[in-house]
Amino acid sequence: MIFPETRLSLSGERFTVHYRLTAGGEAEAEALARGICLEQTVEVSDNLLADDDIRAHVVGRIEALEAVAPGHYDAVISYAVETAAGELTQLLNVIFGNSAMQPGIRVLHLDLPPSLLRQFKGPRFGCEGLRALLGVAHRPLLGTALKPMGLSAVDLADLAYQLALGGVDIIKEDHGLTDQPFAPFAERVPRCAEAVERANHETGYRCLYAPNVTAPVDRIFGRARQAKEWGAGGIMVAPGLAGWDTLRMLAEDDTLAVPILSHPAWLGTFAISPEQGVAHHVIFGQLPRLAGADATIFVNHGGRFAFSRDDCRGIVEATEQPMGQLKPIFPIPAGGMTLDRLPEMAEFYGSEAVFLIAGGLYSHGPDLAASSRRFRQMMEQIRRSR
Amino acid sequence: MIFPETRLSLSGERFTVHYRLTAGGEAEAEALARGICLEQTVEVSDNLLADDDIRAHVVGRIEALEAVAPGHYDAVISYAVETAAGELTQLLNVIFGNSAMQPGIRVLHLDLPPSLLRQFKGPRFGCEGLRALLGVAHRPLLGTALKPMGLSAVDLADLAYQLALGGVDIIKEDHGLTDQPFAPFAERVPRCAEAVERANHETGYRCLYAPNVTAPVDRIFGRARQAKEWGAGGIMVAPGLAGWDTLRMLAEDDTLAVPILSHPAWLGTFAISPEQGVAHHVIFGQLPRLAGADATIFVNHGGRFAFSRDDCRGIVEATEQPMGQLKPIFPIPAGGMTLDRLPEMAEFYGSEAVFLIAGGLYSHGPDLAASSRRFRQMMEQIRRSR
Repeated sequence: MIFPETRLSLSGERFTVHYRLTAGGEAEAEALARGICLEQTVEVSDNLLADDDIRAHVVGRIEALEAVAPGHYDAVISYAVETAAGELTQLLNVIFGNSAMQPGIRVLHLDLPPSLLRQFKGPRFGCEGLRALLGVAHRPLLGTALKPMGLSAVDLADLAYQLALGGVDIIKEDHGLTDQPFAPFAERVPRCAEAVERANHETGYRCLYAPNVTAPVDRIFGRARQAKEWGAGGIMVAPGLAGWDTLRMLAEDDTLAVPILSHPAWLGTFAISPEQGVAHHVIFGQLPRLAGADATIFVNHGGRFAFSRDDCRGIVEATEQPMGQLKPIFPIPAGGMTLDRLPEMAEFYGSEAVFLIAGGLYSHGPDLAASSRRFRQMMEQIRRSR
Repeated sequence: MIFPETRLSLSGERFTVHYRLTAGGEAEAEALARGICLEQTVEVSDNLLADDDIRAHVVGRIEALEAVAPGHYDAVISYAVETAAGELTQLLNVIFGNSAMQPGIRVLHLDLPPSLLRQFKGPRFGCEGLRALLGVAHRPLLGTALKPMGLSAVDLADLAYQLALGGVDIIKEDHGLTDQPFAPFAERVPRCAEAVERANHETGYRCLYAPNVTAPVDRIFGRARQAKEWGAGGIMVAPGLAGWDTLRMLAEDDTLAVPILSHPAWLGTFAISPEQGVAHHVIFGQLPRLAGADATIFVNHGGRFAFSRDDCRGIVEATEQPMGQLKPIFPIPAGGMTLDRLPEMAEFYGSEAVFLIAGGLYSHGPDLAASSRRFRQMMEQIRRSR
């Protein structure tokens, strides 16, 4: 059968997705690209469609296709804004819902028009808002992580106190700290918030404590609100675990209105195979920003993970390049960083970043406050020398 | 510094994750496995831990490590049940939160003890419950998909009517149909539900219509309830888009209580690279079942996607093998299937499956009801001949 001929009223606005295709030649690449156009929209073969508006406008459209390296092609495919239905979930679906199950297709970049971006509130604070909250005008921000899972709430609060006393700007929790019996959320968060507040009172700094609120859907919004009530200055969420749209809802909640750090847990698979998945630039950059995170944590090159300098640069670009009305956000390189890499990190990332050093502080010496102080001194030194 | 020495009260219950490691030799594989034990729990290096219960019980434990092929090792690592905090989100995190960002690690299988499985309600209907609802005792179930995006609600309802008239058991919507202006949810779902009901009245069959409710978090629960009110017999959700825990909440909602089909959109990347990610068995089998889906849609081998026979067999095993109190669920092979592959599919999957043929019905001839009838006749023939 042929589907009924359909006429549609469409805005004409389209968004584009840049895909990297792995194919044996130009004809194969073109077939792959045509397949994506159908697969991501109508999910039927071309010959079942009437000569109508579905074929002309709902099916994805190849805007460009070029060879970029032997066996590799870049395809730019556009989709009608209406296909995404104003829903983050459906936008993700049009981008890569079914095609993720085919080999040799990788999402490299999203180009979303203002009409689509306006459907999202985006980051509430962004770099500027977060700097204003912390009272830090120019230098890179200093971040660290509260850990490990297994410690009591009292012990974690004590560590938080020492870290804040030394002068870090942001203390996020390990994303593995949720509501374990070792340090239940309702005990841990008030204690840590109080400890950081106490340190701030002593130092005059404004260290921000961001507990991990990643949790089941029926608990995450409550935890976020409680965290704020108990004095946490921000929250951390892992959208891979909690869902991208849950991050969006937290960010758009006017009664919450605290900075949100996005954590990369469970998302690594998207980026790790260069010929599949969703590039670092998108999964750790464009998507967290679109969903409303004010900063995006990822693993720095040269640590214990597998990200390259180019991968990290791609993420940084996504945090700062124009994206409609969406504010620029902070990249937070992390993962096995040490104090002696600070100069190099400052060279690579410049000032618009949060440098997250955790294990590297804990292992620096017996006095955690002193290690944290050393972290801050080194950063101020680097800043003065530039 | 060394973290404070900690004594914990633990149940002693542990769950295990089977990982496939890609490594240059046994020593490298062991280092990788040890890394996972730390990375997925305490996220600090071993030498910062006291000789305490965190080191002994919270850190993951290598239960087995063996070479399975040149350069490939299987590691079985156990974690204290308490690390998952009774939360699906945190369970996923312990399984593969950070290690997903390292190359050469793939999750092959989960072995969850009854004490952990009891924290989840699991599938409400499962195979038996779904068969009872549909009034089909033994044969494989016949499924199809309503499409394409772009058609009006009236046209989609007409297609649904014809498909139901022919005698398919389940009509699921394309997962790309959400709330587009072409066929808004609130118009499409009542119309299609009514059309299927009308056909059922004529045939005496009990065709189940499962609209796609995948949506943003603030809308998905409402859509699921509306779908039921409007007469849909089931719902479909893509947990990759909506979040695994959102699927769990839908499944555990006693006021909803309709069968749930899980759709694989956005999840393909996890399975597609054999040395990374999360095996088909887990991502399309164990996880949907744990989260409470009654049936799991995936792409059959030999269609337009890249799944192999072994991949599909792995999914089937996950739907039926013992998993505590969790009911067995239906595998739903789909994706480019045609009527002439039915005998082979029946051979491969046996009776405990839903065969989903969509494009293969639409392209079979001009009369959709006749094609649907042919689908049913072929299945009954196959059943009689065995």
